[in-house]
Amino acid sequence: MPRPRSEAARQSVLEAMRAAVMAGTYESVTIEGLAESAGVSKQTIYRWWPSKAAILGEALLEGDLPGADVSVPMSDDIRADLHAWFTAMSTGLARPEGVALARALIAVTATDHELGRALNERLAQPIRSWVAERIARGQVDEQVRPDVDAGAIADQLIAMASYAALIGQPLSAERVEETVTRLLRGIAR
Amino acid sequence: MPRPRSEAARQSVLEAMRAAVMAGTYESVTIEGLAESAGVSKQTIYRWWPSKAAILGEALLEGDLPGADVSVPMSDDIRADLHAWFTAMSTGLARPEGVALARALIAVTATDHELGRALNERLAQPIRSWVAERIARGQVDEQVRPDVDAGAIADQLIAMASYAALIGQPLSAERVEETVTRLLRGIAR
Repeated sequence: MPRPRSEAARQSVLEAMRAAVMAGTYESVTIEGLAESAGVSKQTIYRWWPSKAAILGEALLEGDLPGADVSVPMSDDIRADLHAWFTAMSTGLARPEGVALARALIAVTATDHELGRALNERLAQPIRSWVAERIARGQVDEQVRPDVDAGAIADQLIAMASYAALIGQPLSAERVEETVTRLLRGIAR
Repeated sequence: MPRPRSEAARQSVLEAMRAAVMAGTYESVTIEGLAESAGVSKQTIYRWWPSKAAILGEALLEGDLPGADVSVPMSDDIRADLHAWFTAMSTGLARPEGVALARALIAVTATDHELGRALNERLAQPIRSWVAERIARGQVDEQVRPDVDAGAIADQLIAMASYAALIGQPLSAERVEETVTRLLRGIAR
C-alpha cells in the first residue's frame, strides 16, 4: 500500500498520461518526463509500473474515455436508435481524442497483449451493453430474430467507426445510413 | 528525370522501406539509415521526398502488399465464396506483415492525409473489385438485391479484419461465419 504522498504522485503520473493520450502526444511521452512532473525519481516510476504501456493501460482503465463513451437514449424505434447511436459513435471516434484513444489501444496491444485485451474490454463494454439492451428490446418487440448475436454487432460497428477514424476517412452520413439499413435487414425477424 | 545511377539508389531506398514495413520496424527507420544503405547523402533523400511518410507511401503504392492482396476463386456458391474470401483476408491481415501494413497506413495518414487516402485506395482496390464482381454475379443469379452497395460491403469487411488484427484479437472462425451469415441475410433478394 503506497503512502498518501506516493499515492498523490502515482495519480499525477496517471493524469499526465491521460492528458498526453487525449492530446495525441502519447508517442513522445518519456518516463523521465513523467517522473519529473510527478516529483519522483525514474526508479520510483519503474517500481510502480514495468513499462510505459502499463502506465497508459492503468490510466485508461480508470477515468473517462472521451470519444468512446457514447450514450444515446432509447425509443420504440430501433432504426432511429441504432442510427443515432452509430452516428454519435462515428463522430466521437473521428474526433482527435477518439483517434488518440484507438491509437493508444493499438500501441498498448503491441507491447502488452493482456493489457491490450483488458483495455479493449473497457472500451467495448459500454458499447456492447447499449447494443445488447437495444437488440433485446427489439427481440421482445418481435422485430429482431431471437438468435442474433448483439456482441458481434457491437464489435462490427466499433471496428468500422474506429478504423475509419484511424485512416482519416470518417464514415459519411450516407455510409452510416447504409450500414444501419443493411444491418436491420440482416437481423429482422 | 533522375540518371540511371540515381534511379537505382531511389529504388534501393524504396526497397529498404518496404522491407522495414514488412518486418514491422517502420517506426525506427531513419532518413540517415536509408541514405547510408543507398549510398547517397541525406540531402539527396530530401531532394527526392519531402518526408519519411512520403517514402513509405511511394514504397507501398508500388510493389506487392503481403497480407492484403487476397485472391480467391469464385464458384456458383456466394456463401462459400464470401466465407473463403473473408477467412483468407482475416488470416492475411492478422499476420505480422498484415498488421505492419495497416499500421503503416495509419502512420502515413497521420502525417500526409492525401498520401494516406491514395494508399488506402491502393489497399482497398483489389478487395473492392473482388467483392464487386462477386456481388454482381449474385445479382445476375437473382440471389442478391439489385440496390446493394458492394463498396460498402468491402469497406466493412476490410475494417473488421484490419481493426481485429490491429488490436491483437483476430476474428475467430465463428465470428467470420456469423458475419457472412448476417451479411447474406442483409443483402438477400
